[in-house]
Amino acid sequence: MTQVQTSSTTAKAVAPKWWQADCLAINEKIKTEAQDRQLILTKPPGSLGRLEDVAITLASLYCDNKPSIKKPLITIFAGDHGVVAQGVSAFPQAVTVAMIRNFVKGGAAISVLARTNEAQLSVVNCGTAFDIDFADDYDALISKPIAAGTADLSQQSAMTAEQLEQALCIGQHVVEQAKKGGIDLFIAGEMGIGNTTSAAALACAYLSQPAAMLAGRGTGIDDAALENKIKVIDQALARLTNKLAKKPSKKELSSDGVLQELGGFEIAAITGAYIRCAQLGIPVLVDGFITTAAALAACKMNPDVHDWLIFSHQSKEQGHKHMLEALAAKPLLDLDLRLGEGSGAATALPLLRQACALHNEMATFAEAAITEN
Amino acid sequence: MTQVQTSSTTAKAVAPKWWQADCLAINEKIKTEAQDRQLILTKPPGSLGRLEDVAITLASLYCDNKPSIKKPLITIFAGDHGVVAQGVSAFPQAVTVAMIRNFVKGGAAISVLARTNEAQLSVVNCGTAFDIDFADDYDALISKPIAAGTADLSQQSAMTAEQLEQALCIGQHVVEQAKKGGIDLFIAGEMGIGNTTSAAALACAYLSQPAAMLAGRGTGIDDAALENKIKVIDQALARLTNKLAKKPSKKELSSDGVLQELGGFEIAAITGAYIRCAQLGIPVLVDGFITTAAALAACKMNPDVHDWLIFSHQSKEQGHKHMLEALAAKPLLDLDLRLGEGSGAATALPLLRQACALHNEMATFAEAAITEN
Repeated sequence: MTQVQTSSTTAKAVAPKWWQADCLAINEKIKTEAQDRQLILTKPPGSLGRLEDVAITLASLYCDNKPSIKKPLITIFAGDHGVVAQGVSAFPQAVTVAMIRNFVKGGAAISVLARTNEAQLSVVNCGTAFDIDFADDYDALISKPIAAGTADLSQQSAMTAEQLEQALCIGQHVVEQAKKGGIDLFIAGEMGIGNTTSAAALACAYLSQPAAMLAGRGTGIDDAALENKIKVIDQALARLTNKLAKKPSKKELSSDGVLQELGGFEIAAITGAYIRCAQLGIPVLVDGFITTAAALAACKMNPDVHDWLIFSHQSKEQGHKHMLEALAAKPLLDLDLRLGEGSGAATALPLLRQACALHNEMATFAEAAITEN
Repeated sequence: MTQVQTSSTTAKAVAPKWWQADCLAINEKIKTEAQDRQLILTKPPGSLGRLEDVAITLASLYCDNKPSIKKPLITIFAGDHGVVAQGVSAFPQAVTVAMIRNFVKGGAAISVLARTNEAQLSVVNCGTAFDIDFADDYDALISKPIAAGTADLSQQSAMTAEQLEQALCIGQHVVEQAKKGGIDLFIAGEMGIGNTTSAAALACAYLSQPAAMLAGRGTGIDDAALENKIKVIDQALARLTNKLAKKPSKKELSSDGVLQELGGFEIAAITGAYIRCAQLGIPVLVDGFITTAAALAACKMNPDVHDWLIFSHQSKEQGHKHMLEALAAKPLLDLDLRLGEGSGAATALPLLRQACALHNEMATFAEAAITEN
């Protein structure tokens, strides 16, 4: 078992980065008011279970005891992964670009769910291996390619320090634009052949677990391919251990250093987006395995981000439950989903809206002229 | 442990009742077509998990490989229970009528969820202990009172045979009207102070379990009240055992006999409604503890009803999971809900709609010009 020690502080004093800046504090006063309101609505106390919790959370995040979700945004961050050279995926790398086209043309699962739930959808190209020749045809497609995919994380750092910062800034920028546009809920989706390998490697490093614990079948690889995938991730973790051993002055990798070593462009962009949401006060509905790895990175880099994250679903992908446990997260849905794209989060969106509607519109015992005893 | 043996056939030959008539067969050909379609949509096979299953099920029930839910109906069946005299509930019996008013005035949880999900809502008074003086004010309120509540099931049969048939026919009639109105999904809700006691007693009798296994806290009773509730239910089960012992010619109660002995008017009406839905081809979205007891009764009385039932959620009420297991049901949601009223089923309605939208609107690999390898 290869363990990589991480730390949220770097050894030498450097100018603080934007992602280290404070998150917005949640409103404890409104939280109490929302809890009190739930107790006077015409139902036995607590009988709406987790829908009550969701309403209370959203009230405290919106600073509004009549919370509602009017303008949700789903942004899919796409990027390719050098590690696919190791044969970790069932699909060829060309699928990343093909699916980007499918997203913007409206035929993908997330496209359907965005329409069904009246959510805005955009796609950000963070760097694909194959060319995109249709970028000008779709307003929803934003081109921010960093490179033609990351380097092979099993052999070298997936990104340079500059590339990591570029990726984080893509997410920052998307969220700042969203804030200007009045977005009140943020869902990140992802696309990138090979990205369950990157996400599992990140989780292994952050949680000090071996690959066998956290790597899964992704799009549907067989036993032999899974065994190979585990070997490739363990190789990456061993690489980091060796790298640290050669630098005795620095015993730990910083949490952003881990992201640079093992992340994907799209995962780092989502990490940046989550952090910026927490700084600007936009609640985040986290999707599945890949985005939870980004959530883990974001919380390692800036722990208060956690307050702004609502976890939508438990993925069928092996390892997701361990990441969720590490984040003390209890997701809303468990439907054996393992598609990604933000599809699990989009599926959970109506639960949040129903929780708000119940909180806002139910009669109180006094209004309904019902006495409890 | 008191066990009551049940049987779906009666000892002597009698004219068959309407609820014994055949259910509509599900369409296996469309089911296969729907399964095939899921395999060519632009996603790894199976990656939309239970949303795929739901779409396939609805396609087979609607005989349509483009299933959709356009006109769902939520009907709340309300009735009072003589067993409240034994102190089994935290709320007084007057709350049944107060909540009926709340339903039709739009202030209850189910009223909010019906609006949010664009579902039609109606309420049927099957027999309340207190008078309803506002029946003429609301079109959505249907008056079919059988009596001022059932008799105390711990002391005597909850209903007469005539009352049971009346109650079953209420459900039958509601569904026949719904069918004429073009309803394409049926959700039953319930209201009746004391009805978790009746539902638990029914489940004990049908599943041959002691009350301690299946009785729960209902609206929120304390430990002492729960102990009493268990005692009261065991008393009812012992009463049935004694009753059978006095009739050596008849060793088993029929499944409708159990419903007559232990049911509530609203539970029997829901049982009738579920059976009629299966006969007329309307899919049912089952709610929580009480309605699952009705589903159990319906499946005991007419086993093919099961094909038409989709189970929406796992209630927090003790015993629900045992009933679901007995029905081989894996519900879609698990949100610690324990309100009833149909609220869990209504909350799950968007999942069904999203499953249909994905099935109907996603591009195939061929349409998106993506080759898998």
